[in-house]
Amino acid sequence: MEPSGGSRDARPAVTPVAAVLPAGGSGERLGGATPKQFCAVQGRPLVSYAVRAMERISWISDIIVVVSPENIETMKSIIEKYGHKRVMIVKGGITRHRSIFNGLKVFAENEFSNHLLQKPEVVIIHDAVRPFVEEDILSKVVMAAKEHGAAGAIRPLVSTVIASAADGCLDHSLERARYRASEMPQAFLFDTIYEAYQQCTDYDLDYGTECLHLALKYCNTNAKLVEGTADLWKVTYKRDLYAAESIIKDNLSQQVCVITNVKEAVAQVGFLLHESLKSQIKVEVVSISLSKNDSYLQNIFSGQCYNFICVNDKKYAIQETQQLVDMLEKSNIPLLYPVVLILVHLDISENISFSIGMEEITRIKKCAREVKKKNILVYGLLIQYK
Amino acid sequence: MEPSGGSRDARPAVTPVAAVLPAGGSGERLGGATPKQFCAVQGRPLVSYAVRAMERISWISDIIVVVSPENIETMKSIIEKYGHKRVMIVKGGITRHRSIFNGLKVFAENEFSNHLLQKPEVVIIHDAVRPFVEEDILSKVVMAAKEHGAAGAIRPLVSTVIASAADGCLDHSLERARYRASEMPQAFLFDTIYEAYQQCTDYDLDYGTECLHLALKYCNTNAKLVEGTADLWKVTYKRDLYAAESIIKDNLSQQVCVITNVKEAVAQVGFLLHESLKSQIKVEVVSISLSKNDSYLQNIFSGQCYNFICVNDKKYAIQETQQLVDMLEKSNIPLLYPVVLILVHLDISENISFSIGMEEITRIKKCAREVKKKNILVYGLLIQYK
Repeated sequence: MEPSGGSRDARPAVTPVAAVLPAGGSGERLGGATPKQFCAVQGRPLVSYAVRAMERISWISDIIVVVSPENIETMKSIIEKYGHKRVMIVKGGITRHRSIFNGLKVFAENEFSNHLLQKPEVVIIHDAVRPFVEEDILSKVVMAAKEHGAAGAIRPLVSTVIASAADGCLDHSLERARYRASEMPQAFLFDTIYEAYQQCTDYDLDYGTECLHLALKYCNTNAKLVEGTADLWKVTYKRDLYAAESIIKDNLSQQVCVITNVKEAVAQVGFLLHESLKSQIKVEVVSISLSKNDSYLQNIFSGQCYNFICVNDKKYAIQETQQLVDMLEKSNIPLLYPVVLILVHLDISENISFSIGMEEITRIKKCAREVKKKNILVYGLLIQYK
Repeated sequence: MEPSGGSRDARPAVTPVAAVLPAGGSGERLGGATPKQFCAVQGRPLVSYAVRAMERISWISDIIVVVSPENIETMKSIIEKYGHKRVMIVKGGITRHRSIFNGLKVFAENEFSNHLLQKPEVVIIHDAVRPFVEEDILSKVVMAAKEHGAAGAIRPLVSTVIASAADGCLDHSLERARYRASEMPQAFLFDTIYEAYQQCTDYDLDYGTECLHLALKYCNTNAKLVEGTADLWKVTYKRDLYAAESIIKDNLSQQVCVITNVKEAVAQVGFLLHESLKSQIKVEVVSISLSKNDSYLQNIFSGQCYNFICVNDKKYAIQETQQLVDMLEKSNIPLLYPVVLILVHLDISENISFSIGMEEITRIKKCAREVKKKNILVYGLLIQYK
């Protein structure tokens, strides 16, 4: 995968932003009975990865998932099981365009929603079957949409595109370098895309595939095209499920969460770790007191982070460790792969002595042995400095 | 994967057919140092799968692999290691078109080859990074090329294709249903494609991507477009390597080779097994005397078949089993996954009695224990009938 950035600086000003995730596809190309957005990858349905990718971004206020009527209950149970927040389920139409239109109506028409949501300035349209969207590209398309009215991610074409004649023979081929594949996410000024959907014909709604095209045709809005990363691809065939699974497995070792308590010296260690690791691995640093039930931390857990470094200056960290293990267990991350938990005890006391005694070490060892059965590997580290 | 047919009836008459496999790509999109065609999938380089797919087809006489100068030694060692036959290595040019042209010259120009090969009537052009091509589609494009002068596999577009304007905004989008992705394999009357390459400009050779386009532009030949299967896709990104690996693993359990000796009654059992299994699994039946070093069998082994049923009517089949195990070991199939070997002793003697005595059973058991260490699982079955 290509590097994806995704720093917190990417927040696009204070624009109200919502997201619509059409998830109504039938999955015929996958060759299975389960629509692909509900296929499990590492024990979790694909749509849940896409929802999570959206809900991890604090500046997206509402996430509308549009599913076909027969899958509403399935979707409800997914939201409950994985604790998704800020998500509303909307009944889909018979085509992708009709489903997206239904999703947009929630913000504009009372009849479609008991709880009319705040109309966003910009709406993101993404796919339930593109699980790896990062904040960086979402932010780019949102900012471009604010400026241009519409924006969408693109990728270079992998194959040459050709047009066939009526006799099934080649009519002409397109010069590959002049064209791009239109991918997701896309973003629009809400009023622009909503007007486009209101104006467009039944033929568009039934046979069209491209939201950017509607914005151009009905609102004269030329979308800004934003170069996306390779991992934006759409899970279409069975082989794509294999690929998604392998990418998720790979990512497990490429992300670390550093948890520090709030004291300045300790938080500083977290900052230093972040600086030194960030070029090689995705690092999140959280400064919290673990005694609180932190929703931000919950979010990281549900993001399937498998590596944790806990830095603290407390003498008895064992309770906190136990608490972290409990939170991990409750977070529904499939513990098929080992979670690594490195406890760093930072001894900043003037009195340089081994402040962790034998009793404490024995307790940590015992705890590590216990949680190893749950596939959580605990390591301890003592650092003393003046 | 979609079903692919591939029966032996697919042989396209008695046309001399050769294949050119351009394998000169640099693999930049993969993000690794190794060009993708040399990346190992299940312990074997991708190009070896593509070569094998060609050499398994008896009606393809010569396979030209075109590699960049720095990879000629690598390619030689791959051919040696995997025992590829009918393969010639040709030095590639700086672009795909120049490499293919070099490959074609082997059949037409003495200076390019010490051993001028027989000029084929039809030449297949495929890719080193499309490992799963089946006889069925090869046969279809060859037959279509005989009739139309050129033919190529196509697939539906996964994403909408768009053209961007100079300012990086959308100019227009193409109606997805009217276009197709041009994939491989393609096939051409040799004289047609060779003339196209001789006529075409340096600009074509340096910036073009599509052989069908050259045939159209320079020989006025409208290629026949043939709907291909999903597994013809090109390994382009790292995720595609994961997908290829998973497909190969899946295939291990979907292919079985039935080996019978040549006696009529026994060969008949092989035929019956083939008939009853062929709707669920790919079945090859070979009637041979294992004492001969059969090249067809060697080919099946190198095809990474992992399931064998040996049917015989001999009393002492243990030597043959041992011989089969030896052949498997020498065949370079990576024994990471268990090979299953089912020995069926068919007792057709009039004298109904347990003709395999305790001694024989003990020997088979001992043999099974031994080869299990090599990840080969041997099972025995005794069938008696009048």
